[in-house]
Amino acid sequence: MKFENLLADRTENMRSNAIREILKVVSQPGMISLAGGIPAQESFPMNIMNTLAESVTAQYGAAAFQYDMTEGFMPLREALSAYVKARGISATAEEIIVTSGSQGVLDALGKVLISKGDRIAVEAPTYLGAISAFNPYEPEYVRMDTDDDGLIPESLEAVLRAGGVKFVYLVPTFQNPTGRTLPLERRQEIARILEKYDALLVEDDPYSALRYRGTALPPVKIFAPDHVVYVSTLSKVFAPGLRVGFCVAPELIRKWLVLVKQGTDLHTSTFNQALAAEYLSGGHLDHHLPDICKLYRPRQEAMLDALEKYFPDGFKWSAPEGGMFLWVEGPKGMDMEPVYWEAVARKAAFVPGKFFYTDVREGIETMRLNYTMADAATIDRAVRILGEVVAESA
Amino acid sequence: MKFENLLADRTENMRSNAIREILKVVSQPGMISLAGGIPAQESFPMNIMNTLAESVTAQYGAAAFQYDMTEGFMPLREALSAYVKARGISATAEEIIVTSGSQGVLDALGKVLISKGDRIAVEAPTYLGAISAFNPYEPEYVRMDTDDDGLIPESLEAVLRAGGVKFVYLVPTFQNPTGRTLPLERRQEIARILEKYDALLVEDDPYSALRYRGTALPPVKIFAPDHVVYVSTLSKVFAPGLRVGFCVAPELIRKWLVLVKQGTDLHTSTFNQALAAEYLSGGHLDHHLPDICKLYRPRQEAMLDALEKYFPDGFKWSAPEGGMFLWVEGPKGMDMEPVYWEAVARKAAFVPGKFFYTDVREGIETMRLNYTMADAATIDRAVRILGEVVAESA
Repeated sequence: MKFENLLADRTENMRSNAIREILKVVSQPGMISLAGGIPAQESFPMNIMNTLAESVTAQYGAAAFQYDMTEGFMPLREALSAYVKARGISATAEEIIVTSGSQGVLDALGKVLISKGDRIAVEAPTYLGAISAFNPYEPEYVRMDTDDDGLIPESLEAVLRAGGVKFVYLVPTFQNPTGRTLPLERRQEIARILEKYDALLVEDDPYSALRYRGTALPPVKIFAPDHVVYVSTLSKVFAPGLRVGFCVAPELIRKWLVLVKQGTDLHTSTFNQALAAEYLSGGHLDHHLPDICKLYRPRQEAMLDALEKYFPDGFKWSAPEGGMFLWVEGPKGMDMEPVYWEAVARKAAFVPGKFFYTDVREGIETMRLNYTMADAATIDRAVRILGEVVAESA
Repeated sequence: MKFENLLADRTENMRSNAIREILKVVSQPGMISLAGGIPAQESFPMNIMNTLAESVTAQYGAAAFQYDMTEGFMPLREALSAYVKARGISATAEEIIVTSGSQGVLDALGKVLISKGDRIAVEAPTYLGAISAFNPYEPEYVRMDTDDDGLIPESLEAVLRAGGVKFVYLVPTFQNPTGRTLPLERRQEIARILEKYDALLVEDDPYSALRYRGTALPPVKIFAPDHVVYVSTLSKVFAPGLRVGFCVAPELIRKWLVLVKQGTDLHTSTFNQALAAEYLSGGHLDHHLPDICKLYRPRQEAMLDALEKYFPDGFKWSAPEGGMFLWVEGPKGMDMEPVYWEAVARKAAFVPGKFFYTDVREGIETMRLNYTMADAATIDRAVRILGEVVAESA
């Protein structure tokens, strides 16, 4: 059978992911990986998982295992209403849609909003999971400039002024891959620009709860509530394997998100939503979150110290107040892909930063380093290896 | 903000589902509903849920709550390999992809295979969940004729001979909505036709485990393995709220299914997959499935008896050996939508069969009746009401 003839046009345009290809070697035995982008298993509240499950079966019985509303399990939506309120977002339970991870929101937004050739404005560099959610709907990407404080508002304004942008996608806090955070003034300025050009922002906020220093910043959503779809997840503060994400979207979009989600997966696991509801409303998150931050903060500090110790002059890196990543920039023109292969040969892995740009010719001198998956001593060892390799390559 | 301008072309083509609209009244207090299409909560193995959860946390620890492979949790894929082998399907664990319900397979197939305007061949009537999975990818539907034994092979051959069909979608066993089952000879004939025209079949098999009488039939997949994507789910034999479905697909399609699933939800809940793995490999399914059949069989018998007792001449209905639905056909030209409204006024609901046709002008004299959600006495009461209403309308 000639299966290639069967593929949809959109599928023929998808190539095997270059980043996946080069990261295949990361699982080799003995490799220290700073390449991952996932939470440490030690961050999951394993001590209460059985209790949460028992509590769910006692409280909801078989209803926790039955089909449920596409919009989400109501006790979780109520708990999420309180959760986002603590971030300054006013949303009733009815205004919250639960999805299968925040990936599920991004896919649904793509399905609802993107026609082939539509232009989506993204940061350079940007989060790849969003690109892989949007790509099947065949958009084109418009890049916006960033600096150490994230998106440069003037770049957003220039892109919107030129017109024809369907929506803007941003990770304003502890961005993946850079760890950068938009300061308050830029958030307000971005909100003002969105309103001025009547534009829609998809604000993706998976990391803001992982703050190790400094003061929480309000989401852009609160400054332009009608122009922002706020997207978040419990993957970083509870457990990613449960696949529970959510969004707060303007009403007219929400209706369509529910309709397309019904066709995609009917609804997100009722049982997992009930576990999440218990975790939030039982006060477990409030109790456990400081422990997660206590786990990651010294890992981040170890990485910052090691970069200072082992990296040569001509390199700079972000020092975010939270999140999971640091972003390293080497001397202009230095290609981090050969560095990657040499580092891997010495058993330390990272992600060359160019893979996070929609134009792969950008960012060749950058690296993304993750610090959530290894302990401080291991991080020190890996960064020392990276420091040696970049010194030899410089 | 003018959100309508934001919608993708595909979204503008989606209308609010007519069936959803008319079924809104079904949740009124005191209503007896034969309109649903879901398993009874009494069918879930609630007595072992806490034990399964404890067993998962003991066996896999935090790994059951971590991100996992897009393809699925390997212990579940291994268990499913044995599960489909009992149906005659040879598939290694690697050849099985786990999805978020069988809806997740149907969505992924649509994303991989359907370009706008592509033709999909479906039974008349067909399963609506498949239509809502495929619709966002903007196919056109080609209807195929059915009789009391399901799809008529000559109709399939005529459609394939005419050419231009991307794939064929069938529910061969205890079909939703009709309850009909393809006999062995038709399965073999359909496989022969698929091979002759080098065509792809999506074989959706959610119900075959719910057999109350007669002998199991092999899936079409085993007669034309390279031309069939076999789709099934644990929703009817474990718990639908866990959203665990799966497929066995030819290799070249499988690769793309994984790629698009990564963009849709990264992967299906690891914890729920681990629960399902325990349920299957621990022998719980083999032990519990007879109890599910013991629950549903008398309900189906009560419905068949009640139809015999209360329905006037000129009506006929299916008498399937399993599944969740009966299909009632009234005298030619009798419109079941006014019957629906009158029945609802007397507190008994069903689904007018015309909603299961891609051409809504077909099937106006048909009804779909579900018997899994009410006990035998309640079913008798509801069918008596329906019998009175149709007698008055005839």
